[in-house]
Amino acid sequence: MKGNALVAHGGGPTAVINASLVGLVDGCRGMTTLYGARGGIKGILEENFIDLLSVDRALLASVRDTPASAIGSSRQKLAEADYERILAIFRKRDIRHFFYTGGNGSMDTALRFSNSSDLRVIGIPKTIDNDLAVTDHTPGYPSTARFFAEAARDIGEDNRSLPSPVCVLEVLGRNAGWVVAATCLARKGEDDAPHLIYFPERRVSLETICGDVERVYRRLGRVVIAVCEGQLDEQGLAFGADVDRPASAVHRLSSNLGHTLARLITEKTGLRARAEKPGLLGRSCGPFATELDRREAYECGLAAASAERGMMVALRRDSRTFLTPLETVARKERLLPLEWIAPEGNDILPAFAEYARPLVGEIVHYPHLY
Amino acid sequence: MKGNALVAHGGGPTAVINASLVGLVDGCRGMTTLYGARGGIKGILEENFIDLLSVDRALLASVRDTPASAIGSSRQKLAEADYERILAIFRKRDIRHFFYTGGNGSMDTALRFSNSSDLRVIGIPKTIDNDLAVTDHTPGYPSTARFFAEAARDIGEDNRSLPSPVCVLEVLGRNAGWVVAATCLARKGEDDAPHLIYFPERRVSLETICGDVERVYRRLGRVVIAVCEGQLDEQGLAFGADVDRPASAVHRLSSNLGHTLARLITEKTGLRARAEKPGLLGRSCGPFATELDRREAYECGLAAASAERGMMVALRRDSRTFLTPLETVARKERLLPLEWIAPEGNDILPAFAEYARPLVGEIVHYPHLY
Repeated sequence: MKGNALVAHGGGPTAVINASLVGLVDGCRGMTTLYGARGGIKGILEENFIDLLSVDRALLASVRDTPASAIGSSRQKLAEADYERILAIFRKRDIRHFFYTGGNGSMDTALRFSNSSDLRVIGIPKTIDNDLAVTDHTPGYPSTARFFAEAARDIGEDNRSLPSPVCVLEVLGRNAGWVVAATCLARKGEDDAPHLIYFPERRVSLETICGDVERVYRRLGRVVIAVCEGQLDEQGLAFGADVDRPASAVHRLSSNLGHTLARLITEKTGLRARAEKPGLLGRSCGPFATELDRREAYECGLAAASAERGMMVALRRDSRTFLTPLETVARKERLLPLEWIAPEGNDILPAFAEYARPLVGEIVHYPHLY
Repeated sequence: MKGNALVAHGGGPTAVINASLVGLVDGCRGMTTLYGARGGIKGILEENFIDLLSVDRALLASVRDTPASAIGSSRQKLAEADYERILAIFRKRDIRHFFYTGGNGSMDTALRFSNSSDLRVIGIPKTIDNDLAVTDHTPGYPSTARFFAEAARDIGEDNRSLPSPVCVLEVLGRNAGWVVAATCLARKGEDDAPHLIYFPERRVSLETICGDVERVYRRLGRVVIAVCEGQLDEQGLAFGADVDRPASAVHRLSSNLGHTLARLITEKTGLRARAEKPGLLGRSCGPFATELDRREAYECGLAAASAERGMMVALRRDSRTFLTPLETVARKERLLPLEWIAPEGNDILPAFAEYARPLVGEIVHYPHLY
């Protein structure tokens, strides 16, 4: 193909985004230059590039298996003038192929470049949130789902062996409940954690949560709750958690919702409550990256190299890739189907596990002496 | 040996306490009965026992490799009357051998039973805090140290690829800095996280922390801080974090010190800060249990079975066990040697890594493209 190519990462990293990067590099071997923008959009604007085709192949192969982004990412929003500056940089360097790896916000940026230039713009899917439209699932999600499934199991076992009345596990996720739903995947018995799961798709009042907690506590003497960092109460507020920039969904990420909820539960019910928040560890935890997730991420990068312009690579159930127009995914947020949420709003129905288990793999269930 | 035996667990579980349990069961095969008290001291008082010698051997073998306590534990403090009640229960059931698995508080309880009865009381060491005296290290610590070393690495890589100015990793540990020190073990390069480590052995003011943060930020544009949940400021307070029961060190565990510190750093320096708190996951995370830790835990349980009364099993550097009198460990808290802490109080010196690396094993260091 004529001209040079560039790849950039947008938004939060995942445990397998580097596999997509290496897949793309392998797919672009015939090209003259594949620039990697260091630190996402910011790297493009500053022309802070790495020549990916000249990176030692053994180094690339080992980078494939590492979490977080090896070229860096950013959440920078593009100002009007930035588009023109970037297009000028692309012309100057004869960059005719632009690969952008990210979620639905990044796909919107990609779409805009695609619509306003002759660039061959290709989207590579990436989000732990699993909220991209069209694709069956998104690279990054299976590994994070596995992390939180195992976290819920292990915190549940800790809580079983030394019951502290209430333990809140704060899970990644703003608007979509795909990750928090995955905490169900290690459950087998009726008393396995988590005993209550809430979903950002359904607002829930503190009163409802406390009623649920008291019911479980009466039955088991202990309660493990899984809740998203983005969960909202019935008024659409974050239960009084610290919110850095209320207008920005992204910056709710730095909040303390789990801890705040734990304190409120204690106030209301008199039951001692604590909270755990693995936070960023849930998206970048190397030891939890699954082989399926890595392989699919790699395949998405590889398929992008030869994709036609204006498309995003997507995944079928069986890991095969296909292409979908950027406008089918840009800014579209796929939430958890409401019919998969239990009518009481505090648990997930078996349809979700049927969807997620093949992606996440079997989670070891621990034997018990009692 | 004549009479029956009983084992109970005290305090927080670990990733390998079940290996100690199975080691003890294997060592007690010649005895008539080995009771396991369900839920620690509470289980003894309620005579809630499991007959461990009749548990299916295949089940026991699989329990060996699970985190958290398979018979349950408690933090219950013994009232004066409880001692007499327990001794009466022991007499009634002809229990003459009492194995108590725990840290220095549990060893104090064990010592009291040993001093006031004819029981053969044996202590089995267990604590992620690594703060037991005499023993070179304690089962449970290597696995938790590994968890936080890898957590610091992975959060560091996430922060490297999408720099949020300041990220606070809240680490388990009240008074002893053995676990927070272990966050250094994945570092190789000058810019690897954590960039600042504080120790409960040294109080530190918010002003000092903010000065350190600004210095690192000027150099790298990002700062990862590792700090204990039990860290105190120069006034001996928890930086304003929620403290459920100020008089109880144990109950500081449910606080939000990392988040509170992050908010204060933002207020003082203007740098956005967030906090992660894996919490209980750090002591009960199955996938991070190391084979060395499991094997040593098993050996401690096995050695306890034939130990002489009034002793605790301890470990040498090379994993061999030896016995030490309970009075040498009861209520004694081994803190991190002050001479291992950097003079500035914000990092650990190489002497610690020389101590810890053989216990924790090599931590994979990720390659970088930039």
